[in-house]
Parts: sequence; C-alpha cells; structure tokens
Amino acid sequence: MANEYKYEFFNVMFPVEYVAHVEINRPEKLNAFVEQMWLNISAIFKRLSRDPNVRSIILTGAGDRAFTAGLDVKAASQGAITCEFSDPARTANALRRHILKFQDCISDLEKCEKPTIAILHNISFGLALDMSLACDIRLSTSTTQFSVKEVDIGLAADIGTLSRLPKAVGNSSWVKDVCLSARVFGSDEALRAGLVSNVYKDKAEAFKEGLKLATLIARKSPVATVGTKELLNYSRDHGVDDGLKYTAIWNAAMVQTRDVKDAMLSGLQKRKPTFAKL
Amino acid sequence: MANEYKYEFFNVMFPVEYVAHVEINRPEKLNAFVEQMWLNISAIFKRLSRDPNVRSIILTGAGDRAFTAGLDVKAASQGAITCEFSDPARTANALRRHILKFQDCISDLEKCEKPTIAILHNISFGLALDMSLACDIRLSTSTTQFSVKEVDIGLAADIGTLSRLPKAVGNSSWVKDVCLSARVFGSDEALRAGLVSNVYKDKAEAFKEGLKLATLIARKSPVATVGTKELLNYSRDHGVDDGLKYTAIWNAAMVQTRDVKDAMLSGLQKRKPTFAKL
Amino acid sequence: MANEYKYEFFNVMFPVEYVAHVEINRPEKLNAFVEQMWLNISAIFKRLSRDPNVRSIILTGAGDRAFTAGLDVKAASQGAITCEFSDPARTANALRRHILKFQDCISDLEKCEKPTIAILHNISFGLALDMSLACDIRLSTSTTQFSVKEVDIGLAADIGTLSRLPKAVGNSSWVKDVCLSARVFGSDEALRAGLVSNVYKDKAEAFKEGLKLATLIARKSPVATVGTKELLNYSRDHGVDDGLKYTAIWNAAMVQTRDVKDAMLSGLQKRKPTFAKL
Amino acid sequence: MANEYKYEFFNVMFPVEYVAHVEINRPEKLNAFVEQMWLNISAIFKRLSRDPNVRSIILTGAGDRAFTAGLDVKAASQGAITCEFSDPARTANALRRHILKFQDCISDLEKCEKPTIAILHNISFGLALDMSLACDIRLSTSTTQFSVKEVDIGLAADIGTLSRLPKAVGNSSWVKDVCLSARVFGSDEALRAGLVSNVYKDKAEAFKEGLKLATLIARKSPVATVGTKELLNYSRDHGVDDGLKYTAIWNAAMVQTRDVKDAMLSGLQKRKPTFAKL
Amino acid sequence: MANEYKYEFFNVMFPVEYVAHVEINRPEKLNAFVEQMWLNISAIFKRLSRDPNVRSIILTGAGDRAFTAGLDVKAASQGAITCEFSDPARTANALRRHILKFQDCISDLEKCEKPTIAILHNISFGLALDMSLACDIRLSTSTTQFSVKEVDIGLAADIGTLSRLPKAVGNSSWVKDVCLSARVFGSDEALRAGLVSNVYKDKAEAFKEGLKLATLIARKSPVATVGTKELLNYSRDHGVDDGLKYTAIWNAAMVQTRDVKDAMLSGLQKRKPTFAKL
Amino acid sequence: MANEYKYEFFNVMFPVEYVAHVEINRPEKLNAFVEQMWLNISAIFKRLSRDPNVRSIILTGAGDRAFTAGLDVKAASQGAITCEFSDPARTANALRRHILKFQDCISDLEKCEKPTIAILHNISFGLALDMSLACDIRLSTSTTQFSVKEVDIGLAADIGTLSRLPKAVGNSSWVKDVCLSARVFGSDEALRAGLVSNVYKDKAEAFKEGLKLATLIARKSPVATVGTKELLNYSRDHGVDDGLKYTAIWNAAMVQTRDVKDAMLSGLQKRKPTFAKL
Repeated sequence: MANEYKYEFFNVMFPVEYVAHVEINRPEKLNAFVEQMWLNISAIFKRLSRDPNVRSIILTGAGDRAFTAGLDVKAASQGAITCEFSDPARTANALRRHILKFQDCISDLEKCEKPTIAILHNISFGLALDMSLACDIRLSTSTTQFSVKEVDIGLAADIGTLSRLPKAVGNSSWVKDVCLSARVFGSDEALRAGLVSNVYKDKAEAFKEGLKLATLIARKSPVATVGTKELLNYSRDHGVDDGLKYTAIWNAAMVQTRDVKDAMLSGLQKRKPTFAKL
Repeated sequence: MANEYKYEFFNVMFPVEYVAHVEINRPEKLNAFVEQMWLNISAIFKRLSRDPNVRSIILTGAGDRAFTAGLDVKAASQGAITCEFSDPARTANALRRHILKFQDCISDLEKCEKPTIAILHNISFGLALDMSLACDIRLSTSTTQFSVKEVDIGLAADIGTLSRLPKAVGNSSWVKDVCLSARVFGSDEALRAGLVSNVYKDKAEAFKEGLKLATLIARKSPVATVGTKELLNYSRDHGVDDGLKYTAIWNAAMVQTRDVKDAMLSGLQKRKPTFAKL
Repeated sequence: MANEYKYEFFNVMFPVEYVAHVEINRPEKLNAFVEQMWLNISAIFKRLSRDPNVRSIILTGAGDRAFTAGLDVKAASQGAITCEFSDPARTANALRRHILKFQDCISDLEKCEKPTIAILHNISFGLALDMSLACDIRLSTSTTQFSVKEVDIGLAADIGTLSRLPKAVGNSSWVKDVCLSARVFGSDEALRAGLVSNVYKDKAEAFKEGLKLATLIARKSPVATVGTKELLNYSRDHGVDDGLKYTAIWNAAMVQTRDVKDAMLSGLQKRKPTFAKL
Repeated sequence: MANEYKYEFFNVMFPVEYVAHVEINRPEKLNAFVEQMWLNISAIFKRLSRDPNVRSIILTGAGDRAFTAGLDVKAASQGAITCEFSDPARTANALRRHILKFQDCISDLEKCEKPTIAILHNISFGLALDMSLACDIRLSTSTTQFSVKEVDIGLAADIGTLSRLPKAVGNSSWVKDVCLSARVFGSDEALRAGLVSNVYKDKAEAFKEGLKLATLIARKSPVATVGTKELLNYSRDHGVDDGLKYTAIWNAAMVQTRDVKDAMLSGLQKRKPTFAKL
Repeated sequence: MANEYKYEFFNVMFPVEYVAHVEINRPEKLNAFVEQMWLNISAIFKRLSRDPNVRSIILTGAGDRAFTAGLDVKAASQGAITCEFSDPARTANALRRHILKFQDCISDLEKCEKPTIAILHNISFGLALDMSLACDIRLSTSTTQFSVKEVDIGLAADIGTLSRLPKAVGNSSWVKDVCLSARVFGSDEALRAGLVSNVYKDKAEAFKEGLKLATLIARKSPVATVGTKELLNYSRDHGVDDGLKYTAIWNAAMVQTRDVKDAMLSGLQKRKPTFAKL
Repeated sequence: MANEYKYEFFNVMFPVEYVAHVEINRPEKLNAFVEQMWLNISAIFKRLSRDPNVRSIILTGAGDRAFTAGLDVKAASQGAITCEFSDPARTANALRRHILKFQDCISDLEKCEKPTIAILHNISFGLALDMSLACDIRLSTSTTQFSVKEVDIGLAADIGTLSRLPKAVGNSSWVKDVCLSARVFGSDEALRAGLVSNVYKDKAEAFKEGLKLATLIARKSPVATVGTKELLNYSRDHGVDDGLKYTAIWNAAMVQTRDVKDAMLSGLQKRKPTFAKL
C-alpha cells in the first residue's frame, strides 16, 4: 500500500491499521519547502482523503531539527515571488495565479476528509503554521520554536495563516502580536493562546501520543468522524443557523449508517464495534 | 407562579426575586433525555422568555450524579434515529424533519430573551454540551466529566454542539480533539479551553455562586441585560460592521428607557436603582 | 512634526523613529470622554494612518489613575443620550445618527492602517474596552481594573465592545458574564480569557515593553505590517475562502515591493534592512 | 381529509389528487387580516408541509373583489401597533416580539416543504405582497391592483416585503419606486418587473391555469420537487459556493430515492411514473 | 436655505416643499468629473441627509447634452490614476487609498437617508452609472446613451458599478455584455434589463415626472420613507432572515411615531395628513 | 496552437485573433454528456484560462439539433447516480464525492479568467443550463428549447442551475415555475426573464453575432476585461461593501498597467490601441 505513495520529499507510512503517517523528508534543509513539495502535499492528501484504508493521518517533519523552516527562501528568491512581467498589472496577474495555486495545495490538507494531526517539533516557521492550521489537531513539544515569519521577508503571510489563525485561537491581541513582530515563541505560549492542544516532552513522546490519538479516532465509525470534521470546518465559516441547517441534511443521510446501530449495541454490550470501510 | 410551570421531567422554581431555576428532573436515569423532555425545554424557556417576573435563569440537573448523561440511548434506539421509510431519500426527509425539530427546541434556550446560566456537575455528556452551549454562561464543578459523546454512537453531534462549540471557545485544535475522540475531560481542561468561565468545588457551591451571579444580573435594568444578550448573540454570527449597524438601531430604541436616567442618577447618588418590569 | 497634532485632550508624541505615542490627556477627570474627545480620536488616527513617518502607534492614558473611566456620565446625562424629540421614532432617528457617528469615530482606530498598541492601566471602564478592542494589541498592568460598565447605566454597550469582544477572546461564557454583570475584573482574568496578550508590573514597565514592541514592528517593512494588519482584520469578519481570495489579490500587488528582495537579502547577509516610506 | 383543516377564516380544499387549495375567506372585508388569520396561515401551512397527501398548494382569496386588502387597519389601530408600555424601550420590546411573531407566521408559507402558488386577483395590497412573496410562484389577472401600501399608514413594511421583494424581481429602481410611493400598479408592470410569472384574463382562468401547474408539479417525484424548492430558497440567501456545497449533501441523500430509477425508466419507456408518498 | 448649499460645480435648489434638486453644473465639459466634484457630491448629500427640510432629492445634469460623460479623462490622466511611487506596492497603497476615498464619496449618495431620484439624459457614461446606481430610483429619456465605459480606458470600473449593477438588474448575461464590451446602449435596453424604471420623451418631461414622484414621496411620513429606503438597502446585502431581524428592531422603534396614528386616521377620514420634521 | 487542444468530444478552434471557439462534439447523441466530457470541459477551460493567446471564448454545440440534451441518461443510469454501497450513509458519501467533482468541473467554466459566451441553439436541456449559467454571456436562437429537466428524472438539479439561476435572472416566480415543472420554454420567455441577453434567428446568425461580440471584447485591454469578469462574479456573491473593498485592492494592482495610458492616449488620438499579452 505504501508503494502507491512514493514521493521524493515525503515518506508515507501506515504504522497502525487505518492510520497514515506522512513525513516531510528534507531534513538536511530543515524540511524547507520548494514548489514541488506543496504540489506533493496536495497529491498525497487528495489520495488519502479517498483511501478506504485510512481513517486518520499524522503529519510530521523528518529529523531532529525542524518540523519545517518554511519556504526555502533561496529557491523562492529565484522563483515566482520575484518574477517580473511587462508591467505591474501583468506581474500581479501572474502572482495572483501563483498564490491561488499555492493556497489550493495547502487547503487540500483541510479538504482531506479524514482527521489530520500535525506534530510540530523544534523549528516550525512560516509554512509550518500555514500547514498545521489547515490540519485538525496541533501537538507540539517543549522545544518547539514557532514563528509567523513572513513579515521578516517583507510580506504578509499569504498561504493561509492570516486567514485561519484568528479563527483557531482565542486571543486576537496575541495573534496580532506574533504576526506583526514575527518573533519566535514557544509551546507554553502556543498552548496558552490555544494554538496547540497538547505539549509533550520531545518529538518521540509527541509522536507516541499523537499516534494514540490517531488510533483512537481510527477506531470510531468513519461515518461519524468524517462528518464531525466536515461539520466543524463548516461551522467555523458560517453562522449558527447555517451550521444547524447544514448539519440537519448531513445527518439525514449519515444517520442511516449501520454504524449507529452497531455502535449503540456495542455500547450496551460493552464490546468494541468494527465498522465497514468508507 | 411556579404553578404555571408544571412539567413531568422538570422543576421550575423561583429562589430569588426575578430569578428562575429550571431543574432537569430524571435523576434515576442520570437525567437522560427522552423526546418529551426537549419539547418541555422548549415550552419552559419560551414562557420564561416573556415572563415579566423573570430576569435571569439557572439551569441545573437534579441529583448528585449528573447534569445529564445526554440522549437516553435505549429510548433513541427505538425512535426516529433508527426509523426506516420506503427508501433512503424518504428516510432522510423524515430524519431531517426530526433533527430540525429537535434543534429548534434546544435553540429555544438561546432565543430566550433572559440571560441563562448552566451549572454542569458530574456527568455532562452529549446533550449536556448541546444545551449548555445554547445558554449564556457555563459554570462547572471540580468533578464534572464532560464528553462530546456522539461519535461513540456512530454519528456526528447534530443538535448544536458542532455549530456552537467552535464559536464558544478559543482553541480549534482542542475542539477537534474532543469532538473526534469523544473522550471524557474535566473542568481544568474545560476552563483552560474556555468552555466554562468558572469552576467551583461542588454542585452546592456552584449553585450558590451561580445564584449570586443570576441575582446580580437580575438587579440590573432588564432593558440593558436583554439587549446585551441579544447583541452578543448577534455578533457571534455577523461581521463587526453588521454588528455595529444592528446595535445602533437597537439602542436607538432602547436608550429611550427611563432606566438610563434612573441608573445614572442612582450611580451619582450611590443608591440602588429599581427598574420596571419588561 | 508633533506640531501638526495639537489637540486639547490629547498629546501626540514621537518617542522613537516611526513610532507615534497618543496619550489621552484629561487625567483630572480620570480621562473620561466628552464628545469632542472621540472626534479628536478620529482626527488623530485618520492622520496617523496616512503619515509616512509613522509605522506603529501606542495609545495610553495620562496620569496614574486611569487609562479611561469611560464616558463622562455627567456630560452624557445632559447630551444626546437623553435627548427627546417630538415622538419616540424621531428621537430614535436622532439617537441612531448619534450612535453611528460615535461608532465611526472609534472605528477609525481600527481603520488606521498602522498597527496600534493600547496600554491599559488602572481604571479601564466602558469606552476603554470599546477603544482598545479597536486597537490591534492590548497590554495591561498588574493593577488594571477592567469593566464593561454599560449595563450599570441602563444600556447595552453600543460603541463596539459587544461587536468586537466576542471575536477577540476565546471564552463566550466569560464574555457574557462580564458584559451582563458589569463586574470589575483584573489582568489575570483578562489574560486568561485572551483580552490582553501581556501583563506587566506597572504602567512604566508596560509602556517600556509596549514601546519595544512598537519599535520592533516599526523596523519591519511597512508594506508587510500594514498588509498583515489589514488581512487579519479582514479574516475576522469573513470565512476562510474569502480570506484567501482577498489575500491573493492583496499580495499580488504588495509582493512586488522592493522590500521583499531587500529583506531576503538582508536575511541571508545577516544585516538589518531599511525600507522606504509608505 | 378536509375535515382536519377547519378554520374560521380559511377554506382548505383538495381539488385534485395531491393538490391542496387554501382560500382566504373573509370576502365581506376584502379578505383583510386580523391577528387570528395569520396564526391560521401558520397552522395550515405547517400541517400541509408534512401532509403526505399534499404535493403542491394554491393560495387564493375568496370573492371577486380582492386577494386581500392587507391588514385590517381598523383592527390594527386598536391592537399591538399602537400599544404603549411604561416607556419607549418597553414599548419597543413588546412591538419587537409582536413583529417577530407576525413575521414567523408569514415565513411559515416559505418554510412549507411543498411548492406553493399564489393567485392574486384584484385588490392585492400590503400583506398580499408579504404573503405571496413567501410563496414560490405568483400568478395574477388583468385587473389585479397591487400596492406596497405600508408607507401610507406611516410605516415601513415589516412582515417580509422589504426583505423578499428585492430578491424576487430584477429592477431595484422599480422596487424603490413602488415601496416609497405606495402607488397602485397593475399586472403589466408586475410582469415586466418580474413580480409575477404569468397574467391571466380573470380569476377563473388564473385559477384554472394555476391548478394545471399545481397538478403538473404534483405528478413529479415529491423528492425532486421538495428538494428543488429548498435548494432554490437556500440559493437566494447564499453565495454560489455555499449553494453548491449544500446541494451536494442534499442530493447525496435524495438521489438514493427509488424515484430516480422509476423516472428514468418511465422516461425511456414513455410512460408516466407514480411515486410513493413523502 | 439654498445659500447653505453653494458649490462651484453644483446647483442645489428646492423647487417644492421638502424636495431638493441637485444639478451637476459643468455643462461645457459634458458635466465630466474632476476630483473636487466627487468631494462636493459627498458634502452635499451628507448635508441633505440630515436636513429636516428635505424628504426627497432629484439629481440631474445641467445642459442638453449630458447627465455626465463620466470622469474627466484629461484631468485623470494627470492625476492619481497614473501616479508612481518608489515601487509597485507603494503605488498600489496610494492607489488603494485614492480608490477607497473616491468610492466613499459616491457611496454617500446611497447613505443619504432621504430617497434620491437620478434623471439620466443623453450622455450617461462611466460615473453616470456609478452615481445613479447609488441613487434609489433611475429615470431616463428616449435619447439617453448609457455606457459602462471603463474598459475602454483600460480598467475595470471601480467606483461602484461592478458592485451594484448585478444587484440592481435582473439579467446577468446583459450585465456582463455591457460591462465587458463598453458598448453604448439606449433606454429601451435599460428599461428591459431593469436598469431604469421609467423612460420619458425628453429631459423636460423626465424632470416633470421625476418631480411629481419626488413630491409624492415627500408627502408621506418621513419616518416611513426613510425606513423603507434603509430596509431595502439592507436587504440587498443580507439574507432574508437577517433582513427580517433588522426590520423587527427598526420598526420596534419607528412604529412608535405619531405618524402611524395620523396616517391611519387621515386614511379613514379621507384627508391628507401632515407630518412633523425628521 | 489548436493541436494542444485535442479532445475526443470537443473541437477547439481559433477563428479570430485572441478568440477561442469550443464546440461540444457528440452531435449523433444530441451532444449528451458522459463523464469524460465534463472532465474535458474542465481541462479545456483551465488551459484557456491561462493561455496568453486567448482573450474571449465562445461555447457551442455541434450539429443542428442541440446545444446539448443534457446528461446521457442511459450512461448515467449505469453510473454513479445509481451506485449502492454497504449502507445509505456510505452510498451518500460516494455520491457526495461524485457530485462535488462534477460541480467542480462545471465551475471551471466560471473560474476561467477569460470572458465566455454560450450560444444555445435548439435542444438545451439540463446540463445546458448548468453550463451556460457558468458562462458570462448567454445568446440563443428563435428555435431554442430550454428545460431545467432534472425533476423529470426524479432529482433536484445539482450541478449548478439551482445555485446560479436565481442570481442570473430577475423573476423568482418564473425560476420556481420552470425548475419545478421541468417544462420546455422558448427564447421569448428566456429573454423576458433575463436568462439570455440576445436572441437571433438561427444558429448561424447567433454564431456570427457572438463572434462579433467576442472579437470586440478581445480587442479591449485584457487587464480590464479579466478584472471586469472577476469583479462581477465576486459581486454576485457578496454585499456591496465587500465588493467595493475587493475592487479597491484589485485595481490598486491593475490600474498600474501600461494599458491605461495606452487606452487613454488612443482615445484622445482616435486610434485603436494594442495591448500586451496577459
């Protein structure tokens, strides 16, 4: 099965039944991103989204030093970000296409039907935020260094952080602080502000606990977890009335699953249910 | 006055002037809900909403063991959730009607004009979240056990939790974690994530403090508190510009109350104002 | 330069290159606001917004006792709030015009293109919240006393607090609590709820640290910080898809700045870049 | 079956299989509305909405002279619209409750799951617009006299016309003209502006044609027509992306109906399909 | 009274009690706009909005040849549109400020509380559309020549036409056609597409009929007409549920006007009511 | 150049400089759609969107008999629409994926940056509406037969018609009529309701006129026409304030094009400008 998921800069593994593990694999460059990598991210998560053997996913960075240092600035400085066409409007049109395409790739993390858990260890700059904010759950370690780094290279973050961060955490003053100053902050601050939901000693422990959580989720009815993810994402961007309306028709279809009866019965009988593939 | 509020599964009391106390009263079943109970909730809060003798409301569960264990699964397993019509579309239509009706009943907690305070003690599963998230203020005790339990019976929560929780707290990673895993969590976590605003030793203390807060609110101008509730609820679902616009016309009417002059004068004279009924 | 910013109730100073400091200056009345003052606020921040010599702004209250005690109730009790026209509808129309104008003045804090930092010390009631919630970053001191005071004068807060507070912090139960009860709360609670991002010992320390932060921001590319502020404000009021779309066209224009190349190069060369005025 | 639908001011008939006909029956007062009548409208259409024997509905006014002359002004002048409480804010609160309740009753026409056809003949003032705009299809006669009459009694229309009319027709200049002037206009203008979709010679012909259309709709799969109504109503109030998303989950449930296969097969076999009740 | 409304490029007259007439007065240049003129438009309509002696307003262009030919291209070619700052991002920032300011001025036509009627005769290009779409009612003559002219000078219309036109008329194919081709079209087409609500023989007749309509509106209760305008504008930009909610609180204040009783009584007594100033 | 656009069921031609012509080419089946065809539509329009040699596009159907008869029902009856998984929820999940993918392909017509003109001749059922409503301009012939056919096969239209039609035309009563009845209607009705903007004698004339219009558009500045399309599409789904804001930043970038100066100068010099590729 892992054979179907071969990519130069990513490892895709299946450590537990129904659980996928995606590893960013460019450790010698602190897992910094070149264009091909975000195209890969898109391809991998589109596939996992529909893979009936996958019910939850963990995203990590290879090596000890970084989840990712963000954009590979040297590569970027020769790429689209500095392109020039015949006038500023034509350059703007080319840049807009480029940004939209890049955003779309990262948004494929969010559109993935299956719950995703990002484990941010050590250097977690720029794109680390863009990507993990498009994941469902964020875990970190006692030594994680976060930074919304973009203003330090002269631009406002444009691949998702500025759109998703204000909706992910509960302190708008802190959001403005870290986005405007580009300062590095640690897990304590990330936990207090609500950016991560748990902090672990080191990468090994974070992975062990992340895998436990992924396994727990993978044992639930996939009809229930896929629906829960979709409805929570929908609610973020809609008023409560719209959320309830969308939920009602969603569950009108999904409550018809056999899983409800199986789960109820198992509950009454105190045994673990198993569920068909989705 | 309490005579007008007689319901099989609920006690409605008036412990302090202008304060109502609604108690879920099926303790032998951990206050688990059958259909009649959410119809009751709707009827009670619609009535309290317009009762001129009520300015704030406390919602509690009877007995020591639970605020509520949620849906009465045994009853539900024989009810609408497992109904089957002549084809999946017709079943979906019946389910949609059922879900919308159930949602409407719980939303009547939110539509109640008067501020509401939920006191969650011990087992507070499933519907406990749906209901308390439709209340204004949530208090808990050191032994409260919370769970967004629905995925454990094979479905995505559909009576409001997935629509209201992301807007009530400030850690979207934590929201996904508890909704996808259905794990039980305590008041420490609830307080840190922002689900409750205060935790007390036990139910008795929480009730005492909740009553103090309800009494404090009941002594304010009802024009002011009813407006504050409505405007805050409106803001949750609208952009700031819309919020300001709605606020302007709201207060254009409401600032004309005699209460403003009375309150200002009392303030300057250091005495307690009294306000006409609303 | 400060000569252009002369106002009876405000001092405008420029303590550091590109950093402005606006001080509410009516300490003998606890910096309480009369109508002329919010007109001043509007004028000052509109001007700072376009001043090429300004890249970040600090807002403080003069004196030891208060950031501001809010509306000058005595003045207000003789003003628009208690006006009466020939019938309640005509009064409502006049009040609506008045409220909209007042809201607009405070919203000019938010519309100011440059990042703003409010330092709330000691008494910070009513308008203190309205104003600081229209700023980007909120800092406070160990002795700050906050209160959403409006219900105590018989009205729902209408100059922005009820529209902005629910989107600024991550505990809706706490928001309802403090807005409905008008109770005074301290910095511990403000920090926990997410209203402020840092608490300092006293006003002097808070100002020193606020100035450090303002200076840090002022040294970044103004194209980047102005964009970051605008995109974060936009995101608060729109869904993620809309946010991404707006970001894409924004950066299509703004990434063409020379600052990107300068910042990237400085980064690689480990030196501080300087940026042209905006 | 008609026995279940007995109301003092309404006749409910079933002229054709699956088609209901609701007649406003107060012809001696030009079918003018008193409060009980809008409560009846709500009750009738809530019931029809769920009645498995109903697939489309016609709404008409009894007698030759009027669909309805609108609110019974004499009754209204003694009712809620002129009530006075202890101060303008308390009066406003009572009025708001009254308006919301009245709006809800008329919105029950729109919430009715089954398609509704209003036939407007002769005098069709005020509430005639509010109600017919909450229906799906509007037909009129060569002598229909329309008027958005409310400004003539000193108020802005508040039961739905000002919210629904701008979305129902395609000439905002005309909308402002007729709403601001309260002038009477005829079917030619109504057709040109897009308020009605067909004009017939007289009431008899309009009813005959309306009944034909209702019968045609009633012969389609009720899964398809109920869904079409709901999705079109949803689209009116949402952007296209939201509309597509809601449509996708709606049809994910509804396409599973046996009716699709039956309808496809009937189409290929050139025979009329019959569909199970909904 | 006209003395208070002196502007170089505009005449402001009061032909009938409560009716203002604003005339664009640069006929020798086909009433083409230079920057000062849109600043004037803003100032005039802000003042009329609050002038108690004004209840409706007519906007026309002086001379026989044009309502307005739009932007004065020669002046614009030396102005902001062709400015250049130190890099494309800084130029973009300056342009954005300029466009927002220009848009704001034209939007002041829409924000004017009193109903406005634009009479478009002969050449009506570019800004003619931007401005008249911000008015409530549009009338034209048999010889009016309309054009959304902007693409002919290399840009997408940015002062309001592209935002308001799709919501003002009912044929999106026609909207795209005229906006993309910049072709000139006449009143027949404008009427059919829904851009104007009436076409008259020539400017004189159009003015006579426009004045009749303005007079009719000016005789209604100003509480009713101002509310009707505001609620219709609100509805254009919100879903029906939001519209109803906003309407309910609006009328809760406004129905308390004495005008309702006066209007009702006058209606029953068949006489003309008079209303107090607003 | 046409060599790059080879597809089994489509011809792509370039009849005039900068104008592309896409022809649906399955005339022996009335251009009915099988799955491969909507995948092709997506691929073709994605490519045209970025092709610098294309500035406007015409979409037609091959042969005399039909633009398209819609979905190939026979093929569909063996495809996704009738699939069945292990329970109705799993079937719903598969159907939802299928519908979203199908919608995305048709939405690529709308997302194409370049203006598109659909020419609907003779049979134009089902998908003909879905597709042409995702185009910018719709032209038809005197013999075109339109039908929103879906309810006749037991389902609510789900590929875009129900989301886009209500926003494209100005008569909601007519929209409900044709969508609920599935009746065939002609060009007269389509023109009156606002579905098409011009009707021509036959396909040949419609193509000739469509090509004229496409050529006219192709001669304008592509910066201007691409922006006009995007801003009009944006406006359809947003309020006016949002539209203005998005427009301001859009033009802040795009007004910097050399095309503005070239177009202005050409205008003053009465000659045709030429514009660089986009």
